[in-house]
Amino acid sequence: MKKLWKGLAVSGLALTVVTAGSFATSKDTVSAKETKKSQPQNLIVLIGDGMGPAQVSATRYFQQYEKNITHLNLDPYYVGQATTFADRGEDGGTVVSGVVTDSASAGTAFATGHKTYNAGISVSNEDVSKPFASIIEAAEASGKATGLVTTARITHATPAVYASHVRSRDNESAIASQYLTSGVDVLFGGGESFFVTKEEKGKRTDKNLLPEFEAKGYTVVKTAQSLKALSSKNTKALGLFGSSHVAYVPDRTAETPSLAQMTSKALEILSADKNGFVMMIEGGRIDHAGHANDLPTMVQETLDFDAAFKTAIDFAKKQGNTSVIVTADHETGGLSLSRDNIYEMNIDLWDKQKHSSEYLIGSLNDAKTLADVKKIVADNTGINDLSDEEAQLILDGDGSSYNREGGYNAVVSKRLLVGWSGHGHSAVDVGVWAYGPIADKVKGQIDNTQIAKAAAAVIGVDLDKVTAAMQAKYVYPKFKINRDKEVLYPAKALTLALNGKYQASSSIATLSGKGATITVDLGASTAKVNGKAASFTVELDNGTLYLPLAAFNQLTGTTLEWDSLSERIQLK
Amino acid sequence: MKKLWKGLAVSGLALTVVTAGSFATSKDTVSAKETKKSQPQNLIVLIGDGMGPAQVSATRYFQQYEKNITHLNLDPYYVGQATTFADRGEDGGTVVSGVVTDSASAGTAFATGHKTYNAGISVSNEDVSKPFASIIEAAEASGKATGLVTTARITHATPAVYASHVRSRDNESAIASQYLTSGVDVLFGGGESFFVTKEEKGKRTDKNLLPEFEAKGYTVVKTAQSLKALSSKNTKALGLFGSSHVAYVPDRTAETPSLAQMTSKALEILSADKNGFVMMIEGGRIDHAGHANDLPTMVQETLDFDAAFKTAIDFAKKQGNTSVIVTADHETGGLSLSRDNIYEMNIDLWDKQKHSSEYLIGSLNDAKTLADVKKIVADNTGINDLSDEEAQLILDGDGSSYNREGGYNAVVSKRLLVGWSGHGHSAVDVGVWAYGPIADKVKGQIDNTQIAKAAAAVIGVDLDKVTAAMQAKYVYPKFKINRDKEVLYPAKALTLALNGKYQASSSIATLSGKGATITVDLGASTAKVNGKAASFTVELDNGTLYLPLAAFNQLTGTTLEWDSLSERIQLK
Repeated sequence: MKKLWKGLAVSGLALTVVTAGSFATSKDTVSAKETKKSQPQNLIVLIGDGMGPAQVSATRYFQQYEKNITHLNLDPYYVGQATTFADRGEDGGTVVSGVVTDSASAGTAFATGHKTYNAGISVSNEDVSKPFASIIEAAEASGKATGLVTTARITHATPAVYASHVRSRDNESAIASQYLTSGVDVLFGGGESFFVTKEEKGKRTDKNLLPEFEAKGYTVVKTAQSLKALSSKNTKALGLFGSSHVAYVPDRTAETPSLAQMTSKALEILSADKNGFVMMIEGGRIDHAGHANDLPTMVQETLDFDAAFKTAIDFAKKQGNTSVIVTADHETGGLSLSRDNIYEMNIDLWDKQKHSSEYLIGSLNDAKTLADVKKIVADNTGINDLSDEEAQLILDGDGSSYNREGGYNAVVSKRLLVGWSGHGHSAVDVGVWAYGPIADKVKGQIDNTQIAKAAAAVIGVDLDKVTAAMQAKYVYPKFKINRDKEVLYPAKALTLALNGKYQASSSIATLSGKGATITVDLGASTAKVNGKAASFTVELDNGTLYLPLAAFNQLTGTTLEWDSLSERIQLK
Repeated sequence: MKKLWKGLAVSGLALTVVTAGSFATSKDTVSAKETKKSQPQNLIVLIGDGMGPAQVSATRYFQQYEKNITHLNLDPYYVGQATTFADRGEDGGTVVSGVVTDSASAGTAFATGHKTYNAGISVSNEDVSKPFASIIEAAEASGKATGLVTTARITHATPAVYASHVRSRDNESAIASQYLTSGVDVLFGGGESFFVTKEEKGKRTDKNLLPEFEAKGYTVVKTAQSLKALSSKNTKALGLFGSSHVAYVPDRTAETPSLAQMTSKALEILSADKNGFVMMIEGGRIDHAGHANDLPTMVQETLDFDAAFKTAIDFAKKQGNTSVIVTADHETGGLSLSRDNIYEMNIDLWDKQKHSSEYLIGSLNDAKTLADVKKIVADNTGINDLSDEEAQLILDGDGSSYNREGGYNAVVSKRLLVGWSGHGHSAVDVGVWAYGPIADKVKGQIDNTQIAKAAAAVIGVDLDKVTAAMQAKYVYPKFKINRDKEVLYPAKALTLALNGKYQASSSIATLSGKGATITVDLGASTAKVNGKAASFTVELDNGTLYLPLAAFNQLTGTTLEWDSLSERIQLK
């Protein structure tokens, strides 16, 4: 391979941005005629996470052959398809991420209109990243009500790109904290663990956020029953329906709301705002079932999403002034509808599975014998003739982190007559469905960035303006923490990001800013500020000079603040 | 499995037709306003055989990352997607074919507007099939010029559905013979072997068809040079650019025309007709490369198709009065763009392969050692570090009929970072692209049958009327040939198809027609015609009564003729 790909982790240099694929993203501007000035424009974005073309076809076939329903609720609104590629950030033979997108990169594209690297949450693909404003943030700034609804953790990548900015999607505690100041009115999903501390069976190391949400006026609900009890009087609501993700459809209890129920309640609350609203609704676990290669659960999750779409489209048609746009971030699993040269699918069997494969993990891990495995499979699928070879494959696991669950799905998928190419994402284009004023702006073959641009046009907000305000406030640098637990930043990249100048020879680096000129002796690892010896740490790591915040405070003549939770520098 | 699927072969009963999936196929009627009566309407149908969503995305990525071309010629014309399912013909727990379509079934759908079973060439899914008229046949009947252009054999399923009718796509000699009387003016593709006899290195057992084509006014050409020499004065032309399929793009010589060259010449000839024209252009080998799992060749074939589309769309824009519609019959290979949990594709390596894997079959079969295999792979792909394990996989073959070629593609595809689910088709929906008056009739989520209906509407022909005329002329029964080489037909199905009556008890069957009443003693296997002992054969096979044509001649009082080549009965 000419290009070395360093994997999903954020690393390497990224100075050149891929500009290809933008042919269909010509600027849409708001036409005064298009927006009825008298009434506020609403926007509902629905994201089927991992819902590629085969996922949609599979779900339609399931309905067609098992339920005698010839089409999905989505079908009449199909308008085109979108490319999804991530910004590799190619530079000098090294790339930051693969071209096959993750949810963070794709989400950043359709939420903000900008491509980025895999794992980036609405920040640019640079050593010192800049934040990009999302359509939800721009709507919030314009006075509209806003909401995020998902079956994944509410801190997961897809909702996160709409109301937070971090270099790494894994920093879900920071994402939860940023939601607190985001102004987003309705937050429904799973992920309580990133709102509460380890003592409360959560993941946070700092504090329980729920009292702070309540102090800000949020009603916190945790069950379908308490969700139902909310009314439009609860103008701010935080619904957390699971410690991690909301349970899969086949595994839900009476306490678990469906995505349609969450959607319906969110619409009730948000539509009471006289300025209109923007909300995002994610079918977040179509992706998870795809990763696990659990087709029957994936179909159920897609139907759950399609039912939420029906709730949204029924509202839009009744209400008017509402655009609905639906897409996926990417395909998950490399799903193929048929396999092994057989021109058939065993759709009857898709309808037999009682629980998700995730639900079986405990019992599969406890299984000791082939007979144990055969009983688990028979009980869950009705497959009563599992061979010893098939059972052994499950006992052995599939060699991935999915282990016996992966083995179970490999064996069952062969019976279902569907194929998978692994447990990751794929780069096939994804469908776009739309209704209302946005529809004409997203039809045909588009890039996913066009969705943010079209959304901004129909609700009449300026994403660039909101982005500029954010970029004046924060930068998101790469950093390292040394043995003395000091936080150090790449000197050249941060100097340039702070509008300073950086010059370097093999022995001396000179940093010039409004506050001072810093000279670094690269050999001795010492620095001088305006000619006087500096007290701050100087480190070289693989040829890259790192300096602490103290250096940049002097360089800029300001007091910069390091937000260690969100891993960003607040500019003054 | 509740339903027993008997495979691709034509077998079993098929009395119930699946009627699901027709939500988007509401009738389109010709509006006088839509067709400019003063000028004839032209129609160009382009079929990317096996060109599913991932095939299109892959080809665009190839252009984007290797050629710095951000979009395909097709991209600006994307309007929707189509379902492709075959008619299973479910009946009493037995189905005729799988739901995953082949080219014959899908082609019948978009050429005639009717679903059928896999392998059926524009005939219905019944024990005694009826022919369905195609858009080409209807255009021919209306006086337009017509053409079929493909890189596959011209007798292959996709062109065949437009101008022939047989129960089995494998009957390519009959398809070639039916072309002779079809009236189709331009036939360009491969497949000379089905026009000439075994003595002439062909497949026919009867005669060389080429003199008959010439006698009908066709100029026969066999090279790119002689193709180029044709002009619009050659109003009828048969181009056969290969004994079997036209060579793959990477394996072509100067004598092999590209699909764009064939398209251009066909347009030159057909557009000279004052009544307008209808033509079908197939990228026939996208599918073949998909079956083989040869991604680099598949990309090249898709680009060849995209270039032919450019020729067609440029013509349509210049000429006016021309609709262009593009789709695929199905996806081939279960292609996935990424694999093995890696979020990247090795697109650089896609650009390195010199020849198709098909081209390597001879040398792969001759290989004796791991070193032999490594040299073949290195010479063709530039992969110089093939492991012993990889080379052994190739030597061992992949266990399919693709054998070492399959092994080669399995090993190389892993390096290319793409996945396949087998060597067959899959059921994912396929893209639809359109330009001109047809575009509004095929946008959104449609079924592939809608394409024929929309085509008929824009060129102003009545498919039902042409179909009725055909059905008055031919039926296509299942049949068997007994030990005495007599052709026998299923008595009940053929009686009913010939508008007779059929009654049966466990011992006696009674057939009544306009000519006679036939009574069959099922125990003795004897028959009486109007009470007198009959001389014709009576056979029971697995409970089904079979009778020869003589019986049906008497039953109907007509002289039916058995066309043994096309395996059909000509009605009088």
